[in-house]
Amino acid sequence: MAVHEECGVLGICSPQPIDAAQVIYHGLYALQHRGQESCGIVVNDDGVLVSHKDLGLVGEVFKASVLHALPRGRMAVGHVRYGTTGATNRANCQPMEVNHQKGNLAIAHNGNLSNAAQLRDQLELGGAIFHSTSDTEIIAYVLTRERLIAPSIEEAANRAMNVLEGAYSLVLMSSQKLLCVRDPYGFRPLCIGQTRQGAYVVASETAALKAVGACFVRDVAPGEIVIFEAGDKPGAPAVTMRSITRHCGSQSPRHCVFEYIYFLRPDSVADGVGVQAARMRAGAILAQRYPVDADVVVGVPDSGIDAALGYSRHSGIPYMPGLIKNKYIGRTFIAPQQADRMELVRIKLSAIEECVRGKRVVLVDDSIVRGTTSACIVRLLREAGAERIHLRISAPPFRFPCFYGTDVDSQENLVACKHSVSEIARMLDVDSLGYLPLEDLPQMMGGKGYCSACFDGDYPTQVALESRKNRFEQRLSQRERIEEGAR
Amino acid sequence: MAVHEECGVLGICSPQPIDAAQVIYHGLYALQHRGQESCGIVVNDDGVLVSHKDLGLVGEVFKASVLHALPRGRMAVGHVRYGTTGATNRANCQPMEVNHQKGNLAIAHNGNLSNAAQLRDQLELGGAIFHSTSDTEIIAYVLTRERLIAPSIEEAANRAMNVLEGAYSLVLMSSQKLLCVRDPYGFRPLCIGQTRQGAYVVASETAALKAVGACFVRDVAPGEIVIFEAGDKPGAPAVTMRSITRHCGSQSPRHCVFEYIYFLRPDSVADGVGVQAARMRAGAILAQRYPVDADVVVGVPDSGIDAALGYSRHSGIPYMPGLIKNKYIGRTFIAPQQADRMELVRIKLSAIEECVRGKRVVLVDDSIVRGTTSACIVRLLREAGAERIHLRISAPPFRFPCFYGTDVDSQENLVACKHSVSEIARMLDVDSLGYLPLEDLPQMMGGKGYCSACFDGDYPTQVALESRKNRFEQRLSQRERIEEGAR
Amino acid sequence: MAVHEECGVLGICSPQPIDAAQVIYHGLYALQHRGQESCGIVVNDDGVLVSHKDLGLVGEVFKASVLHALPRGRMAVGHVRYGTTGATNRANCQPMEVNHQKGNLAIAHNGNLSNAAQLRDQLELGGAIFHSTSDTEIIAYVLTRERLIAPSIEEAANRAMNVLEGAYSLVLMSSQKLLCVRDPYGFRPLCIGQTRQGAYVVASETAALKAVGACFVRDVAPGEIVIFEAGDKPGAPAVTMRSITRHCGSQSPRHCVFEYIYFLRPDSVADGVGVQAARMRAGAILAQRYPVDADVVVGVPDSGIDAALGYSRHSGIPYMPGLIKNKYIGRTFIAPQQADRMELVRIKLSAIEECVRGKRVVLVDDSIVRGTTSACIVRLLREAGAERIHLRISAPPFRFPCFYGTDVDSQENLVACKHSVSEIARMLDVDSLGYLPLEDLPQMMGGKGYCSACFDGDYPTQVALESRKNRFEQRLSQRERIEEGAR
Amino acid sequence: MAVHEECGVLGICSPQPIDAAQVIYHGLYALQHRGQESCGIVVNDDGVLVSHKDLGLVGEVFKASVLHALPRGRMAVGHVRYGTTGATNRANCQPMEVNHQKGNLAIAHNGNLSNAAQLRDQLELGGAIFHSTSDTEIIAYVLTRERLIAPSIEEAANRAMNVLEGAYSLVLMSSQKLLCVRDPYGFRPLCIGQTRQGAYVVASETAALKAVGACFVRDVAPGEIVIFEAGDKPGAPAVTMRSITRHCGSQSPRHCVFEYIYFLRPDSVADGVGVQAARMRAGAILAQRYPVDADVVVGVPDSGIDAALGYSRHSGIPYMPGLIKNKYIGRTFIAPQQADRMELVRIKLSAIEECVRGKRVVLVDDSIVRGTTSACIVRLLREAGAERIHLRISAPPFRFPCFYGTDVDSQENLVACKHSVSEIARMLDVDSLGYLPLEDLPQMMGGKGYCSACFDGDYPTQVALESRKNRFEQRLSQRERIEEGAR
Repeated sequence: MAVHEECGVLGICSPQPIDAAQVIYHGLYALQHRGQESCGIVVNDDGVLVSHKDLGLVGEVFKASVLHALPRGRMAVGHVRYGTTGATNRANCQPMEVNHQKGNLAIAHNGNLSNAAQLRDQLELGGAIFHSTSDTEIIAYVLTRERLIAPSIEEAANRAMNVLEGAYSLVLMSSQKLLCVRDPYGFRPLCIGQTRQGAYVVASETAALKAVGACFVRDVAPGEIVIFEAGDKPGAPAVTMRSITRHCGSQSPRHCVFEYIYFLRPDSVADGVGVQAARMRAGAILAQRYPVDADVVVGVPDSGIDAALGYSRHSGIPYMPGLIKNKYIGRTFIAPQQADRMELVRIKLSAIEECVRGKRVVLVDDSIVRGTTSACIVRLLREAGAERIHLRISAPPFRFPCFYGTDVDSQENLVACKHSVSEIARMLDVDSLGYLPLEDLPQMMGGKGYCSACFDGDYPTQVALESRKNRFEQRLSQRERIEEGAR
Repeated sequence: MAVHEECGVLGICSPQPIDAAQVIYHGLYALQHRGQESCGIVVNDDGVLVSHKDLGLVGEVFKASVLHALPRGRMAVGHVRYGTTGATNRANCQPMEVNHQKGNLAIAHNGNLSNAAQLRDQLELGGAIFHSTSDTEIIAYVLTRERLIAPSIEEAANRAMNVLEGAYSLVLMSSQKLLCVRDPYGFRPLCIGQTRQGAYVVASETAALKAVGACFVRDVAPGEIVIFEAGDKPGAPAVTMRSITRHCGSQSPRHCVFEYIYFLRPDSVADGVGVQAARMRAGAILAQRYPVDADVVVGVPDSGIDAALGYSRHSGIPYMPGLIKNKYIGRTFIAPQQADRMELVRIKLSAIEECVRGKRVVLVDDSIVRGTTSACIVRLLREAGAERIHLRISAPPFRFPCFYGTDVDSQENLVACKHSVSEIARMLDVDSLGYLPLEDLPQMMGGKGYCSACFDGDYPTQVALESRKNRFEQRLSQRERIEEGAR
Repeated sequence: MAVHEECGVLGICSPQPIDAAQVIYHGLYALQHRGQESCGIVVNDDGVLVSHKDLGLVGEVFKASVLHALPRGRMAVGHVRYGTTGATNRANCQPMEVNHQKGNLAIAHNGNLSNAAQLRDQLELGGAIFHSTSDTEIIAYVLTRERLIAPSIEEAANRAMNVLEGAYSLVLMSSQKLLCVRDPYGFRPLCIGQTRQGAYVVASETAALKAVGACFVRDVAPGEIVIFEAGDKPGAPAVTMRSITRHCGSQSPRHCVFEYIYFLRPDSVADGVGVQAARMRAGAILAQRYPVDADVVVGVPDSGIDAALGYSRHSGIPYMPGLIKNKYIGRTFIAPQQADRMELVRIKLSAIEECVRGKRVVLVDDSIVRGTTSACIVRLLREAGAERIHLRISAPPFRFPCFYGTDVDSQENLVACKHSVSEIARMLDVDSLGYLPLEDLPQMMGGKGYCSACFDGDYPTQVALESRKNRFEQRLSQRERIEEGAR
Repeated sequence: MAVHEECGVLGICSPQPIDAAQVIYHGLYALQHRGQESCGIVVNDDGVLVSHKDLGLVGEVFKASVLHALPRGRMAVGHVRYGTTGATNRANCQPMEVNHQKGNLAIAHNGNLSNAAQLRDQLELGGAIFHSTSDTEIIAYVLTRERLIAPSIEEAANRAMNVLEGAYSLVLMSSQKLLCVRDPYGFRPLCIGQTRQGAYVVASETAALKAVGACFVRDVAPGEIVIFEAGDKPGAPAVTMRSITRHCGSQSPRHCVFEYIYFLRPDSVADGVGVQAARMRAGAILAQRYPVDADVVVGVPDSGIDAALGYSRHSGIPYMPGLIKNKYIGRTFIAPQQADRMELVRIKLSAIEECVRGKRVVLVDDSIVRGTTSACIVRLLREAGAERIHLRISAPPFRFPCFYGTDVDSQENLVACKHSVSEIARMLDVDSLGYLPLEDLPQMMGGKGYCSACFDGDYPTQVALESRKNRFEQRLSQRERIEEGAR
């Protein structure tokens, strides 16, 4: 819950002009779980880019009048974003649109660059100015500068990949082409589908393909650039799909484990791994590693449910939906004033007494960050009469920062950085506690290459552990006065 | 999904002035599932009623600035409502507030009068004018007219109960008292709780009590009037609770079965019956009545899940969450233009292939109304590879209109009115179909008295089967010109 | 500025269905100065009334999507309102719509009943309940109760006029008819126009007729009821206009003087008197009664300008627009926190130095209420270098409350109730001060009968000088506890 | 009316932290006439820039909750803007904020560069990308690139002035300084004031100084850079004001004539010329050049009023406010569907019959663009009974495009480009027509240097008469496909 994903991306390229904005709109609904702070759609109306973006959920930003005001077109891109800044900051809304020497470009980005600070320094020294604080603007600069010397946008993207480090699943739209680009590690998912009318759809998740009626074609390979272009042959409109694979295989894949544990929708399949099945495997591993004599298995909704079912299936202990989540609590909810966290949890979650009273409960959740929410959930079950509570976590403990787009809490707040498992169990007032062992990740991930840096600190790219704080957000009285120098 | 409940009601009476609006706000979040069209809060600020109501979800209507502008007070009432009319009709928002000869009154109502048309005719002939089309305004008139001759508001309520017929769970607030009134049949739920600070809370469901940190005290009995009043002894503030039971026992209880199947939250307990447990019993009955050789049990989210688990538990066939519902699709969602229903279902629901491909699936849902949505869900599963689909419905077939507040579709649209079960099975393209048998309702309802009129036509009160259409919504060219008579 | 008018009313009756809402919308823009707090439109779509009303200016309440969603129809009524209550009170928005025994009715009202309290008491004792605190709901009750026994709505209106006392310019719309009703004194203006397409338009002011392209036909006579009805002869659609004059002449006309001084638009002509001309006459009278040796005449915008021109014309002293009003400051303006009034006036008004520096200035305004704003304006001119300031007021001093719809400040705040003219001159720091003499009102009013009760206390109807405060807005702790009686 | 100004700018630098946002807010209200499409405020909270900007009027964009959420600070800048693009384009809202190598910068700009296209080309070839289509982003690039090598922001501004051509009145805010910059011609006004608390205020107009309670200090000289910086001496906070004048005097001043005729508020004094007085002089010149035997002088509100008064004063013909403008018609007004312009004019303006019936009218307006609106106004007066109409225009005829920020209509639409004065008189159906002669501009401008290029084509800077259309807004099918080159 205190862990956030940055974004979801989406693009379409159709042989004929269609109501592309509406397709993107429906697809964004299927990606809404990846970002709830802002969203946007850019439509390519015969080379002219027309957009709408704002802070808010898809359903808030795109009222009927706004959606229907967007033009038809053969291409469009969309984006949902999780953001950290205040209500008035619209500068970071995506897709980002830029006008450059060789044309215009819309960029939708999911991920995080691990060399952002260095790149930004270089660009600023070359005269670049930045309107936002996002990595996406860095990518925009790198791409458009390469484009000054590269013969095409895809070639510029290929050159940019030599420079960009970290996680980037990109959907790009120029006046004539739709591109998708995935970093050589494949940190974040990205896949391709096709509608029955022949339009190609690119999306962060297969769930979005299904939502817009597109069939899954294949994942974008780590390091791959795929180019879609609508042909111009009159009478036989079609979209061509080409691929540039020069960066493929340069690294071994490192898919983000936490995508499977938390971010991805359970009905998505990413890089060949079904998400729900992976979660059930995690639950089964927990049952095998930490068996316990209990009466009922309860999952913390929503993302602990599948692992709880896996635990139940493997252990034979019956599963019960003993915790109910209020599905109406969203961005606009006003928390009780001077609330202790317990009050807040009581409004968001409720325990069903009949399920747990007098029972020994196996409680399954996906993660423990600070531990405060987990402690409240445990207390909720105790108040409902649970006699024993055995907590099982379907991920290893968080111990390291992520530099690839997962907004884990700061290390000083991570309970697992400072306390042993038995200490945590005591703090949470549970009778036993078991995390998914690191050595079982290969089993959960079905043998695919993965990144588990937030659990074990094994970063695939070079990272600066001492991340420089954004100097534009530091007050003068707290920093050296450097900007304006001596006169 | 095409079946709607009218409302949820809520009230609080505290010994001291508190931020009563905020308590109601949090409680309304827990009742939001009972009505998503409009909501409102009325606070009693030392005898002056101050309110805010509007169309929209609780989180939309009550922004922080609006909520914090409401005064503190010892009493408040709240309401969520399902409504049928257009965007500009705010006249029906509740709680309704009226000023009458003996004071002011706020009224929150859940239910439907079965003698509304007769009462309205009588009142209009007595000079009453109506601003809304809701039954609540009729109740307001009956109450305030009785109040002209009754010595107190509770006595007026007691007299009004001689006149009102049908379903009414009411929360009333005068300048000095909070009352709750439940009709003698107890069609709709209504319960009482108490906070640790001594405030009484009245709510449609126990889930709302829990959400505001109140302990369940008891259900309001069918036919009962309960009066809460803050005492004035300085130094020892307390709320007294009194009861008028003259109408109790005049009828045998007839709790609405469909509340348990669909409306109530699974974590609520109404009239002693746990909702989740009742649904699991319904699933178990289905497993016993319609056993089948299958590989997996899948529930239609959200309200089919518990019955599916019950089926699975009783049959031993493993349960899988094979259908995923998009939780972001709400009031503001813009459906595809010229959409066939299939497209819409595809955006709202998705099937997980790994769960159902090549499998014999038991699909459990709570109801079939027109059958169109059910047919789409079946097709979704077929497309995902389900080999056999056995549909089980955790309610008997809808065959009759409800006059007590459940907005079942019109009879001509109810598929069960025109077709046999085997015909419906063929229409839905399922391999078998089983409804909950009428004779098993007592088992599901744990022996409590219930109303199943929408299934069997056995109405507890007199009803006019030919319901008169609202004449104010008929066009002149379609009716006799009667209003203005001959000159 | 601290004086408010209650409302503007508007109605249309066309032989054919037209976009009546749009006509009303444009007409309401021309009446916006009569009320800026809320507005509404009700369209009669072949007998079905469809409405939209809300708090805000016409341009805020009627966005394109809202306006275009209203249906076409042959009749519609509209209303703009000045209101005193908070942001959440929509109950008082007009036109009021009621459903009664003989049909539905929309009511738009300008004015104030002087026997409202008595009527309300009587109605409440007869079982009436009130949703709003406005006189309009009283009128609705009286009308619909009379309608129970009267053969037509116009006959009911005729009977209601026996009961209603005070100021009422009404536009009524039933399912088949549009009516306008003016009280026998004719306090508030009301006029009739006709478009080239044969539609009749009723409006508070002739300016609204012009705005919708209608020609002025005539004023509604004091005491008159005019009925418009679209005929049904196929092939020759037409609207008939009939008149009931039984109440005409029962009283001698008493047109509100302050309408001419302040409320009415300068381009309106009401009851035969041109508003701008009347204001210029008032200025000329001031020049004649209080001549002074000066260099320049300056008017306080907007309503002091015409009188200033009149003063200038009659005296020969040149007129200069020496005070400029910021035209963007409206309802949403956020005043400086902890502002003294001077700051606020400085933002709203500014003096042009070149006009006044070193000059002897005649300053003309329409009224002095508390005197605080006037003092600020004087100071503004002094700061800009005015050497002498001679203040002339184009109305007599306010000394009495108005019971007919003009919201003058409470008597204790009226500076003229407690201070002599010379005291006021000293308080305002002006070199001389002259009010329009009461005896010159006949000249200003061009010989028409007028009401000047707010200046001289000569009330045409019986009034209760000790107006009962609304008991629903009094706190319990401040009143006797009477509502719920003894038990 | 079809002529638009680009912007108004505002800045404050206070010795102590104050509620700077509120000061800017009130000042922007006084500049609202210079731009109604969007507005924004940036506050410098001890080096951190916090902003809010959006489409809409000041009162729409800055609700209380938004305004009060902005932090206190010693510096702030604000901007109002007239924009041409659609509802969803927020990218052009100002003040523009950029983060660059040497810090952050907020830029508020009024004016237009005449070498924008060349500068943009150069910058793009150097790798710049553009998010907006405004000149301000070009200025931002030039400034920040110069800042890479200049020792201070003011030195960078000084260097930038070698490169920028055209009209620019800038307010710049870095983390530590507030700057204002005016181009060497002084096309657009810019002035400095000071509050009693010692804060310096920079504004487009003196009217804004007055509105925030600041005294006028002086105009910013053409070519001047003025730097404000809050000192850090504890105990004696003060703001220093320094000036860089290296570009002063490089050109002779060319103040925009149309500012005085139309844009500036009548109560402003710009570069020593009082606006109202200048307009009255223009009216007097018209009376002298085109005398006529007439009964009344009428001005077209708002900007024709002062010239009408000047005409009246000089000719002795009485002035009457014979045209009334509806002051509520603003951005949100929905024009009649399929409206002819006449209907629209009828809603916006109305003629007072008593003023003009049977009269010979001198009608004074500030400009004729296409002539269509003028023709409607003439017709309005004819319908009101005017016998003769003599039209006088307080500006010379528009014949040339403006490259310095005045959005005159395209030349093909300018009636004066294609028709002689007598032809125009015939088209407008007036009895005589007189424009302000070019040779009288010196008199109107009080001897100051001025730019009258839109009247006579005498451009002070080099301009490209064939302005390149923005290629990002051209459709592919209408342009050569150049962006992505051949493969």
